[in-house]
Amino acid sequence: MLSFECDYNNGAHPAILKRLLETNNSTQVGYGEDEFTTHAKHLIAEFCGKPDAEVYLLTGGTQTNVVVLSAILKPFEGVLTARTGHIHTHEAGALEYTGTKAIELPSHNGKIKPEDLSEYLSAFYADVNREHMVFPGAVYISHPTEYGTLYSRSELVAISSICRSYGIRLFLDGARLGYGLMSYNTDVSIQDITDLCDVFYIGGTKVGALCGEAVVFPNGNLPQHFPNHVKKHGAMLAKGRLIGIQFEALFSDGLYCMIALHAIEMAERLKAVLHEKGYRFFLETDTNQQFVILSNEEMNRLSHYVRFSYWERYDSSHTVVRFATSWSTTIDDIESLRRLL
Amino acid sequence: MLSFECDYNNGAHPAILKRLLETNNSTQVGYGEDEFTTHAKHLIAEFCGKPDAEVYLLTGGTQTNVVVLSAILKPFEGVLTARTGHIHTHEAGALEYTGTKAIELPSHNGKIKPEDLSEYLSAFYADVNREHMVFPGAVYISHPTEYGTLYSRSELVAISSICRSYGIRLFLDGARLGYGLMSYNTDVSIQDITDLCDVFYIGGTKVGALCGEAVVFPNGNLPQHFPNHVKKHGAMLAKGRLIGIQFEALFSDGLYCMIALHAIEMAERLKAVLHEKGYRFFLETDTNQQFVILSNEEMNRLSHYVRFSYWERYDSSHTVVRFATSWSTTIDDIESLRRLL
Amino acid sequence: MLSFECDYNNGAHPAILKRLLETNNSTQVGYGEDEFTTHAKHLIAEFCGKPDAEVYLLTGGTQTNVVVLSAILKPFEGVLTARTGHIHTHEAGALEYTGTKAIELPSHNGKIKPEDLSEYLSAFYADVNREHMVFPGAVYISHPTEYGTLYSRSELVAISSICRSYGIRLFLDGARLGYGLMSYNTDVSIQDITDLCDVFYIGGTKVGALCGEAVVFPNGNLPQHFPNHVKKHGAMLAKGRLIGIQFEALFSDGLYCMIALHAIEMAERLKAVLHEKGYRFFLETDTNQQFVILSNEEMNRLSHYVRFSYWERYDSSHTVVRFATSWSTTIDDIESLRRLL
Amino acid sequence: MLSFECDYNNGAHPAILKRLLETNNSTQVGYGEDEFTTHAKHLIAEFCGKPDAEVYLLTGGTQTNVVVLSAILKPFEGVLTARTGHIHTHEAGALEYTGTKAIELPSHNGKIKPEDLSEYLSAFYADVNREHMVFPGAVYISHPTEYGTLYSRSELVAISSICRSYGIRLFLDGARLGYGLMSYNTDVSIQDITDLCDVFYIGGTKVGALCGEAVVFPNGNLPQHFPNHVKKHGAMLAKGRLIGIQFEALFSDGLYCMIALHAIEMAERLKAVLHEKGYRFFLETDTNQQFVILSNEEMNRLSHYVRFSYWERYDSSHTVVRFATSWSTTIDDIESLRRLL
Repeated sequence: MLSFECDYNNGAHPAILKRLLETNNSTQVGYGEDEFTTHAKHLIAEFCGKPDAEVYLLTGGTQTNVVVLSAILKPFEGVLTARTGHIHTHEAGALEYTGTKAIELPSHNGKIKPEDLSEYLSAFYADVNREHMVFPGAVYISHPTEYGTLYSRSELVAISSICRSYGIRLFLDGARLGYGLMSYNTDVSIQDITDLCDVFYIGGTKVGALCGEAVVFPNGNLPQHFPNHVKKHGAMLAKGRLIGIQFEALFSDGLYCMIALHAIEMAERLKAVLHEKGYRFFLETDTNQQFVILSNEEMNRLSHYVRFSYWERYDSSHTVVRFATSWSTTIDDIESLRRLL
Repeated sequence: MLSFECDYNNGAHPAILKRLLETNNSTQVGYGEDEFTTHAKHLIAEFCGKPDAEVYLLTGGTQTNVVVLSAILKPFEGVLTARTGHIHTHEAGALEYTGTKAIELPSHNGKIKPEDLSEYLSAFYADVNREHMVFPGAVYISHPTEYGTLYSRSELVAISSICRSYGIRLFLDGARLGYGLMSYNTDVSIQDITDLCDVFYIGGTKVGALCGEAVVFPNGNLPQHFPNHVKKHGAMLAKGRLIGIQFEALFSDGLYCMIALHAIEMAERLKAVLHEKGYRFFLETDTNQQFVILSNEEMNRLSHYVRFSYWERYDSSHTVVRFATSWSTTIDDIESLRRLL
Repeated sequence: MLSFECDYNNGAHPAILKRLLETNNSTQVGYGEDEFTTHAKHLIAEFCGKPDAEVYLLTGGTQTNVVVLSAILKPFEGVLTARTGHIHTHEAGALEYTGTKAIELPSHNGKIKPEDLSEYLSAFYADVNREHMVFPGAVYISHPTEYGTLYSRSELVAISSICRSYGIRLFLDGARLGYGLMSYNTDVSIQDITDLCDVFYIGGTKVGALCGEAVVFPNGNLPQHFPNHVKKHGAMLAKGRLIGIQFEALFSDGLYCMIALHAIEMAERLKAVLHEKGYRFFLETDTNQQFVILSNEEMNRLSHYVRFSYWERYDSSHTVVRFATSWSTTIDDIESLRRLL
Repeated sequence: MLSFECDYNNGAHPAILKRLLETNNSTQVGYGEDEFTTHAKHLIAEFCGKPDAEVYLLTGGTQTNVVVLSAILKPFEGVLTARTGHIHTHEAGALEYTGTKAIELPSHNGKIKPEDLSEYLSAFYADVNREHMVFPGAVYISHPTEYGTLYSRSELVAISSICRSYGIRLFLDGARLGYGLMSYNTDVSIQDITDLCDVFYIGGTKVGALCGEAVVFPNGNLPQHFPNHVKKHGAMLAKGRLIGIQFEALFSDGLYCMIALHAIEMAERLKAVLHEKGYRFFLETDTNQQFVILSNEEMNRLSHYVRFSYWERYDSSHTVVRFATSWSTTIDDIESLRRLL
């Protein structure tokens, strides 16, 4: 069936599978000490414009969020997040399971506002009872957000500047970072992210890989014994090559950006079709996820022909649904959708 | 370089890669709800002779150990393990990170003795201070053990019987289960394991897959909301198909057993070569891992030609090293080794 | 200095000290197995109108909140709380440190509204992604709240009824319960609380004791091996008699209620003085805490003569402060305050 | 009944109760910021011969062990302890509940040997797989131990020296420290402990107080935001004065040492009686706990007249029991015991 359900409903980009085949007979050391992983880390650091950045390859997004946050926070610290942040809503309490509190900021289509952050921090440090409270130790943002929205460069600069003035780490969840970088409507580059964040990750799972997220510590700030920390979270693969090979492929010959750009192009066509057919947008974004309000009848009708994601209830007779594109979305898919709508 | 370092120094068995290629264009639901995973679960339950067993697919061994143990233990319980148990020695404290204590029993070449278990439990329940102690809630065994050794059927029956008489769960770490089942010298079948254990897993990573461990709850005893628990541990893959496809391949056409049997055959040849060349065994096992005592000079000499694993110091001038076989070990490898020794 | 800072700025009610002296030479078993504790538990169960209620004596409020919540929640569950709930704001992340998430509901002067609770739960169970979310397992309310406010009986009935219809536990933090029960303006009795809650505690520390909180499980629902759980939290006193003796005194001859009633009487006089002097209330409550808005100049002037608590910033030139009464507040204190204002 | 069961079977030393009475009407700030606590901290630092040592007052032993260890260990570290260490045996897994592993060393009547420690550490740092293991971050010793035994000064010097050479913290559990300092047969002074340990505590509960343990960080090494950490563990009393007043009394006029010396004197008399009556010692110690082997018949006979503690099974017909003295033991008690034996 035609599927716009999400960006992880498919297999890997063919170039990745090809590379898995080519390297299969190579004998390698385990636990991410293999040559492919080493090469991939080097390629990623180069991509970030910071050759001496420390890069680690993990398996999935929730895992990466908790491994990173529990490594960078001190015992008395928690993490600030938008009310809609993935760590706060859809990770089954994985963050709290590591003993850490999520401190909520308002969400503006998935983003936090620098002024809300600033206000929270100044109020916190003015509070005489703060020794009985969780100290803000990091800010979690996603880019693109869970709603497909993007921070502008000036917003990131403002957030980063506030974090630095308070000695707080800025952590960017880039599970879909490629779509942010390749958006037609962004002024944020990977170099900006490297400059402005203390740690971030470049998502593979949702940008063409079978699995894998590349964590980047750009500033010589790798937590002490980080591999031990990864192991303690059950997040170290014996055959670490599995992720190394995929990221080697993604960051060779510009594949990562090409995959993301393709999905963006498909998303632009998708938006055009939705507009043409008179659909009402809940949120029209500059990345690969689009949110549309359907009447419940229309939603039921469509669900027989095309897969999309339930997002949330809109009102008693309407629902917000999500359409997403990925490396595997084709122009034919878009045209088929046009015919169905 | 010739490598007998471990059973995860290679890629996937070619049949697994082939299946990844064939299925790559299929659009599927995420998070392990895909058709391949469903099929794989069914095949595994059949393999265990218990069609209604509940099967879950996780990524790696340490992750599986902590996800399972933290799910089956009650808040006042810990887990009994041999002093050499993987959870107690080489998982970076992952178990304790979930708040759980490992309670140590003596190790006999990696195994626990039923009498030691029995004695511990009777002493515990005779202790008037036990309300201040961690209650024994589960027994962890590995089969094959970390030392490549195997339990006999009568030993497993005895351990299982003790566990059941005390209401304690028996959990078998089968990261290398295939090699145990296909050993020339075992009387333990998968049906025995299914009958005698409360939960166990069938290892993929070390038996031909890229990653993946299949957890089996045979007795309608799946913990409540287990997928939520998996998610909370950061152990749920968005593209769950990655593991589903691999286990579908492993449990179609007897592949899993064939891979294991091949490695056992290679291990038997390896043992013959080691004997022929007069090497001294630290532990000669019936599975795919063999432990040899080398003088440090010999160890250094060999290390230029062949990879093996440092195991432990034997004495001031000798070291215990491990040679392992896997799906990718060939007769040529064994012959090359014979020429080198 | 005159002090209305809080209800824990003093020592113990003299009757409690007297009882500590009388019993000092008695030799007793440790760890809360002493005769005084046993007697106190019996007296408390009688006070609750449920002679077979299970009662446990712990030391302080934060400790009690986390010991109880971590004991009653299942691994996939979190706790619903008002945004202003003590567990969510002023316990330094103690709850999350036990691996548990606080799920936020709106706060109405410290209280949750039954309709907000109901709406949250129905939305949760309608959400197709709920297996990726933290399940609501308990509702935390405080009575009196952190703002000195009280639930009405009908509100408690509504909340309890919603909880029971969803199979969720209702936990009432009664750190200041005495003041709620003895308020001039409440229709909630201890019997109501016993009937409507699944677990609650009767605070000692803030109602005349040196330390101590009495947890009541009214329905035969004591968690398995609860003393072991208490020990695991470092919350078991070797000389458990210290708390037993205090609660024995508090629940003999109606002392607990008399202490609370006295503080309520003083609070009523305090309110009258504040009104008489034209102070503006931020929140005028029916319990022992009153919240007043002071200009910053007035706040500074008063702070030289009388202690009160900073509560929160009101606007750029005004501050909310708290005045509290306790067993040790005297009519003279109130008159002295009248002269100062 | 005559009771030698333990050193916490009684109330507080009368001088402590007297001080609680005298101070009861004083109005004070909460949470350990009161004048008594401040004064007590000062007195304790003086007692330790280190006026600028940082001192914190907690409630009980298990609580103190986990609050301290979880504060001083880094995320990749665990704690080395004798097999019989209290944290490893009788704290219900409180240590592991904070995510920390206990790493076991052999026990020699409750003590660790410097050579065992040294051997463990050199083997650990020689192990190529150590990144998959828990790093040794601290050494836990008790003095007196759980078996009433004492380290010699030279043993403490050796252990401390090993710790410092590896950058590992030395933590001394002094729940019964007074009895160690006042033993007739020790060369270890409080100044030695202050010099040789990185953190230790001076037990109050078992040396005459109702509750309370004084943690000392002698070297300007107080963990960052330690009060926040205490709060997070539910270990901060609202009426912190309760512990402050007790320690103020204990460290005024030499009371702490006098209490301990009295118990030692009683223990010496007790040993003489046990010898005189021909009892067989399991362990005859230099502190306030003595371990005797009784035939089960004798044990049953005695248990009708005198309380003692079951320690452990000796053989099928004999049991090890413990007799302990404390501030409240009198010469009359010893004489009564002599008549009973």
